[in-house]
Amino acid sequence: MKTSKVAIIMGSETDLKVMSVAADLLKEFGVPFELKIVSAHRTPEAMVDFAKGARDAGFGVIIAGAGGAAHLPGMVASLTTLPVIGVPVTVGKLEGIDALLSILQMPKGVPVATVAVDNAANAALLALRMLGIAHEKTAKKLETYRHGQIKKVRDMNRRVKKAKASKSK
Amino acid sequence: MKTSKVAIIMGSETDLKVMSVAADLLKEFGVPFELKIVSAHRTPEAMVDFAKGARDAGFGVIIAGAGGAAHLPGMVASLTTLPVIGVPVTVGKLEGIDALLSILQMPKGVPVATVAVDNAANAALLALRMLGIAHEKTAKKLETYRHGQIKKVRDMNRRVKKAKASKSK
Amino acid sequence: MKTSKVAIIMGSETDLKVMSVAADLLKEFGVPFELKIVSAHRTPEAMVDFAKGARDAGFGVIIAGAGGAAHLPGMVASLTTLPVIGVPVTVGKLEGIDALLSILQMPKGVPVATVAVDNAANAALLALRMLGIAHEKTAKKLETYRHGQIKKVRDMNRRVKKAKASKSK
Amino acid sequence: MKTSKVAIIMGSETDLKVMSVAADLLKEFGVPFELKIVSAHRTPEAMVDFAKGARDAGFGVIIAGAGGAAHLPGMVASLTTLPVIGVPVTVGKLEGIDALLSILQMPKGVPVATVAVDNAANAALLALRMLGIAHEKTAKKLETYRHGQIKKVRDMNRRVKKAKASKSK
Amino acid sequence: MKTSKVAIIMGSETDLKVMSVAADLLKEFGVPFELKIVSAHRTPEAMVDFAKGARDAGFGVIIAGAGGAAHLPGMVASLTTLPVIGVPVTVGKLEGIDALLSILQMPKGVPVATVAVDNAANAALLALRMLGIAHEKTAKKLETYRHGQIKKVRDMNRRVKKAKASKSK
Amino acid sequence: MKTSKVAIIMGSETDLKVMSVAADLLKEFGVPFELKIVSAHRTPEAMVDFAKGARDAGFGVIIAGAGGAAHLPGMVASLTTLPVIGVPVTVGKLEGIDALLSILQMPKGVPVATVAVDNAANAALLALRMLGIAHEKTAKKLETYRHGQIKKVRDMNRRVKKAKASKSK
Amino acid sequence: MKTSKVAIIMGSETDLKVMSVAADLLKEFGVPFELKIVSAHRTPEAMVDFAKGARDAGFGVIIAGAGGAAHLPGMVASLTTLPVIGVPVTVGKLEGIDALLSILQMPKGVPVATVAVDNAANAALLALRMLGIAHEKTAKKLETYRHGQIKKVRDMNRRVKKAKASKSK
Amino acid sequence: MKTSKVAIIMGSETDLKVMSVAADLLKEFGVPFELKIVSAHRTPEAMVDFAKGARDAGFGVIIAGAGGAAHLPGMVASLTTLPVIGVPVTVGKLEGIDALLSILQMPKGVPVATVAVDNAANAALLALRMLGIAHEKTAKKLETYRHGQIKKVRDMNRRVKKAKASKSK
Repeated sequence: MKTSKVAIIMGSETDLKVMSVAADLLKEFGVPFELKIVSAHRTPEAMVDFAKGARDAGFGVIIAGAGGAAHLPGMVASLTTLPVIGVPVTVGKLEGIDALLSILQMPKGVPVATVAVDNAANAALLALRMLGIAHEKTAKKLETYRHGQIKKVRDMNRRVKKAKASKSK
Repeated sequence: MKTSKVAIIMGSETDLKVMSVAADLLKEFGVPFELKIVSAHRTPEAMVDFAKGARDAGFGVIIAGAGGAAHLPGMVASLTTLPVIGVPVTVGKLEGIDALLSILQMPKGVPVATVAVDNAANAALLALRMLGIAHEKTAKKLETYRHGQIKKVRDMNRRVKKAKASKSK
Repeated sequence: MKTSKVAIIMGSETDLKVMSVAADLLKEFGVPFELKIVSAHRTPEAMVDFAKGARDAGFGVIIAGAGGAAHLPGMVASLTTLPVIGVPVTVGKLEGIDALLSILQMPKGVPVATVAVDNAANAALLALRMLGIAHEKTAKKLETYRHGQIKKVRDMNRRVKKAKASKSK
Repeated sequence: MKTSKVAIIMGSETDLKVMSVAADLLKEFGVPFELKIVSAHRTPEAMVDFAKGARDAGFGVIIAGAGGAAHLPGMVASLTTLPVIGVPVTVGKLEGIDALLSILQMPKGVPVATVAVDNAANAALLALRMLGIAHEKTAKKLETYRHGQIKKVRDMNRRVKKAKASKSK
Repeated sequence: MKTSKVAIIMGSETDLKVMSVAADLLKEFGVPFELKIVSAHRTPEAMVDFAKGARDAGFGVIIAGAGGAAHLPGMVASLTTLPVIGVPVTVGKLEGIDALLSILQMPKGVPVATVAVDNAANAALLALRMLGIAHEKTAKKLETYRHGQIKKVRDMNRRVKKAKASKSK
Repeated sequence: MKTSKVAIIMGSETDLKVMSVAADLLKEFGVPFELKIVSAHRTPEAMVDFAKGARDAGFGVIIAGAGGAAHLPGMVASLTTLPVIGVPVTVGKLEGIDALLSILQMPKGVPVATVAVDNAANAALLALRMLGIAHEKTAKKLETYRHGQIKKVRDMNRRVKKAKASKSK
Repeated sequence: MKTSKVAIIMGSETDLKVMSVAADLLKEFGVPFELKIVSAHRTPEAMVDFAKGARDAGFGVIIAGAGGAAHLPGMVASLTTLPVIGVPVTVGKLEGIDALLSILQMPKGVPVATVAVDNAANAALLALRMLGIAHEKTAKKLETYRHGQIKKVRDMNRRVKKAKASKSK
Repeated sequence: MKTSKVAIIMGSETDLKVMSVAADLLKEFGVPFELKIVSAHRTPEAMVDFAKGARDAGFGVIIAGAGGAAHLPGMVASLTTLPVIGVPVTVGKLEGIDALLSILQMPKGVPVATVAVDNAANAALLALRMLGIAHEKTAKKLETYRHGQIKKVRDMNRRVKKAKASKSK
C-alpha cells in the first residue's frame, strides 16, 4: 500500500525559508509531496479551488504556513475534510503571536493542527505520524527517527564529558 | 444623491448581541443596511459569493464582526475593493486578543479597518464617516452627533456638581 | 476495514467537563474510543507505560487535555509515534495561555497537534480527519458534518430575518 | 468628478520611514495628498486647527501614524467627522503593542480605522477604498491592483517550480 | 503658606467609581480640590481650555483618570507645565492594559506620572507628595499617614495570632 | 527662593546609559542633582539609610531607575514621603515589561510616579514639573522648553517640504 | 535531628486566604512554622529586621506571598542567605502577571524560588523538599505523599469507569 | 559533614551557553556537581531513570534548564522528592515566556523552584541556599558572597564619582 501525498502550501515566497524544512524532512522519509504558493488574501479563489480538490488530487495531509493575520490554514481547513497542519510564521514585529492565535483559535467545527512558531520540521513529522496511522512503513521510519534522537543526546553527553576532561587536564 | 447601503455580517448568531448595536446606530442615522450571518469557516463559498457581489448589490461599506481566529473581515476584504470594517468580538477566554490580531494584522495589499474589541458602535460610525466623504447629508448628521456628545459631558458635569452640593448639605 | 480507536486522556477528573465533549463527538461518529485519567506529574510512570503501549493497544490517535504547565501531550508524544492532539485546558488564572504555550511550543522532533483553548470538540474532529485519510467511511461522515454546518448558518439567517420581520410589524 | 485629497500626518520626522510608503502608493494611484508633521503632544494646538479645518481644506480621508502612547489618530478623529486611519508605528521596545492599543481602543463615539503595525501601505489602500465608494475611477484602479496581486503569486509559483526543476537536474 | 489646589478630571461619569477615592483622600488630608468631567475625545476643545488655564486657576497638580485608548492624561500634560498624574481605569476587556500603555508610554518631552491600574488612592497620595515638597504641613501629614500604615500591619498580626490561638484551644 | 535638589539613583552602573539622560536634562535646567548607585537587592541597608535621610539631605524629588524585578523605586517610596519617580529600564529579554509592572503596580498607600520604559528624560521633566509647582523660575523654563518643542516640529515640516520640493525638480 | 522551622510571611491579611494552604500542609507534615504579616511597603524596617534575624530565629526556609508590585520575597532574599520561596498572589486585574514578574525576575546574585500563581501548596511542598535534603524523615513523608497522589489518580479512573458503566446501562 | 552534590541537567547542548554559568558558580563555592544532557522529549526514559535514582546517586538538589515547551524541570520533579530548580532558557521567538510558564505553572503537588529567564547563576545560588540550610560552611560562604556584592556597589559609586570629577575639570 502506498501512502498519500502531502501538500505544503504557504502564502508567499518569503515563507519558503521556514517552510522548506518540511519539504526536506518529507524527502528524507521518502514521502511524496508538492510545494505551492497559495495565498488566502491575494488568491482567495485559487485557494478555494485548491482546498476543495485536494483529496481528489491524492493528498492525505495539508501543511499550511502563514504569518501575521494567518488565515490560510483555517480557510483551507474549512474547505476540505483532510487534516490541515498550521505553521505560524514570524513576520515583522509581534514575535509570531498574531500568526499563532490566527491559526490556533479556530471555532468549533473546523480544526487546525497547530505546531510551534516557525517549526515546519514538526509539521512534517506530524504529517508523517498521521500517515503512519494506516501506513506501517512510515510508522517504522518514525520509530527509527526517534531512536536517532536518543543517539544524538548520547553523542552530546560524550562531547560534554570530553570538554570537561580536556579542561581539567 | 442617495448614499450606498451598509452590509453588517458576522460569523454566528451569537455575535448578534455585539453587532446589533451597529444596526441600531445606522437606523438612527437613516442609512440603509442589511444584516446577515456569513461564516468564513462554515460557509466559505457563500462568503466568497457575498463578497464578490457586494459592490454590485449596492453596498458601499461592509462591517464584519468575528471572534477567535477571526478570518471573516480579512477574507471578505480580499474578495472586494469596498472598504471592510472589522469588529473583534470576544469569545471564550483570551479577552478578544485572538480576534483583534486575526483581524488587524493583515498583510500588505488587503487592508481591514479595525475598531476596538466589541465596539460595533464605532464600526457603524466609521462606516458613516466613509459614506460622509461624498454624501454631505451624512456628514452633517455626524456633526450633529458630535455636538450631542459635548452636551452629554456637560450634563455629566451638572450631575456631578449636584451630587456634591447635596452631599455637603 | 475498521478504523483505529482513539484515546482520550487527561491529567485530572476536573478536565472531564472540557474533554467529555470530544468523547460525545466520537460517539456521534461511531468511532471507538477510550477515556482515561493519565497524569504526567502524579503518575509519570503509568504515563510512560500508556504511551509506549498505545499503538499496540490498537489506538490510532491520542487526544490529551491538560492545563497550567501542561506536559501530558508533549510527554506522550515523545514516547509514541502516533499523532498526539493537545487540548489546552484553562485552569486558574492566565486564561489558558500557560497551557497553550506548554503544549504548542514543542522542540523540533516531537510534534503535538495543538487545538484552540478548551476546544475538545475540534480535537475530536481533528482525530476523525486523521483517521479519515485512510478510512473512507469516516471521511464521508466528515463531509456530511460539514454540510450540517452550512445548514446551521442557513437556519440562523432564517431566524435573523424573522426577528427583523416581526419587529417591523 | 474629482476625488478628495488624502492627508498623511505623523508625530515626528522619524515616522517618515514607515509613513512614506503610504505617500508612494497614493502617488501610484494618482490620488492627491499632503504630508505633514503634526504632533499631538508637541503641537496640540496646531493639531486642533488642522483637524477642525481638514474637511474645508479639501481632505476626504486622514491617515495618521504614531508610536508609543499614540494619541494623534484618536485626537484628530475627535475633532473632525472625516474618516481617520491610524497606523501604529513601532518605537523603542514593546513591539508596537503600545501604539496599537492606544490607537485601536477608542471609546464609543470616536472611531479610528486601525491597520496593522507599521503597515502604512494598507492605510493608503484603505483610504483608496474609502474614496472608491463614490469615485468609480479609483475603484477600478483598486480592481486592477487586486489582479496584479494574483499575478504576483502566479510568478512566485513559477519561480518555485523552476528552482525545484534546476535542483533535481 | 497655603498649598495649591488639585484638579481631579476624568473622561466620563462611569470613571467616578474609581476616581472618587482620590477625592476622599484629598478631603481627608484637607487639601482643596475640584472634580470635573473633561473628555479628550468628546470635548477636545474644552480639554484644551482647561489644561491651558489650569495653572492660572490655582491648580498645582492635575490627576486624570481614563480607560481604553486613554488620551486625557497625555493630552493635558502636553498643554500645561503642571505635573499630571495618570490613572489607568479598567474598561471592558483587556484588563486595563490598553489604558496603562496609552497613559504610560508618552514620548520624550511630555511626561505623565502613571500609577497602578484603578489605583486612584495612590494618585492622590502622589499629588500630596508633590505638594509636600514645598508645603511642610502636607509633608507632616504624609508622615503621620505612613505611621498609620505601620499600625495597621501591627493590628493585622494581632488578629492573625488571635485566630490561631482560638483555633488551637 | 532656591529649588530642592533631585536625587538620581539606580541599581547598577549598567543603568547609567539610560539614566544619565536625566542628569543631562537637569543640568540643562540648572537644577542641582546627585547621581548615585543604590541597589535594593545588593545594598538593601544602604538603600534604607538613603531613603530615610533623603528629605533632610535636601532632596525634593527622587528619580529611581531599575530593571527586571525592579524593587528600588517602590522600596524607596515606602521609606520616604518625597515623591519618587520610577524609570523601568530594559534588561535582558521581556522588553522591560517586568520592570514596568514591578514599578507601576504598587499597592494602595505607597505611590510611585512611573514613566515610560527607558524614558529617563521624562523622569527629569516630571521632576522639574513637580519642583515647578512652587518654584516659578523652574515653571518658566518648562514653558520655554515647551515652546522649543513646537519650534522643532516647525523645523521638521520645513525639512519635509524641502525634501519634497527637491524631489519634484 | 530536628528539622528547621518554616516562616510563612505575607504583605497583608487579605493574602491569608491563599497563603493559609501552605500552613495547613506544613501542619499535615508535622513541620514547625510561623505565620506573620510582614509588609515590604508598609513596614519596610520591620521587614529588614525579620529577614536579618531569620536564620538565628531558627528558620530554615522562608515562604513569602505577595501581589501586585510584589517586592516582599525579593527584598527578604536580599537580606538573608536562607532560601526564599515566592508565591505570586493575584490581586485586582492583570491575572497575577505583575506579581509573577516582580517575584521571578530577580537580578543575578539574589535568587527567589518562585512557584505558580496562587499556589501556596507548592510553596510548602518545595520548603519540605528543601528541608528533606538533610532531614530524612521529611524526605520519607514526601515519598508517602507522592504515592498518595498516584492513588488519587487510580480512584479518579475508578469513578470515571463507573460513571460510564452506569450510563451505558 | 559534607554537603550533597548538585545535578545540572539540560535538554540540549545548545543550553550549555546559559547553564554553564551555574557550573562555574558551584565550582567557585567548592560544591560538587555533575553536568549532563537529559532531554524530556528525546530521551524520556533516560530522564525517568535519572530522576528516580537522583537521591540515591548522592544528589541533594537538581538544577534543570529548558526552553520552549520546557517539560524537563517539572517531569523530573514528578519523579523525585529532591528540590528541583527550573531555569527558563530563551529559544527562538517569544522571549522565553513559553519556557517560563511551562516551568512555573506546575499543578498542586509537584513544585518547581523557578528562577528568572536565562538566570542560571541564580539557580546555582538558590541550590547553595538550599544546601546551606543544614550545611553551615556553605551558609557562611553565601554570607561572604553577599558582602562581596555590597563592595561591588561601593566600587561602582567610586567610579561614577571619578567620572563626574574628571568631567567637571
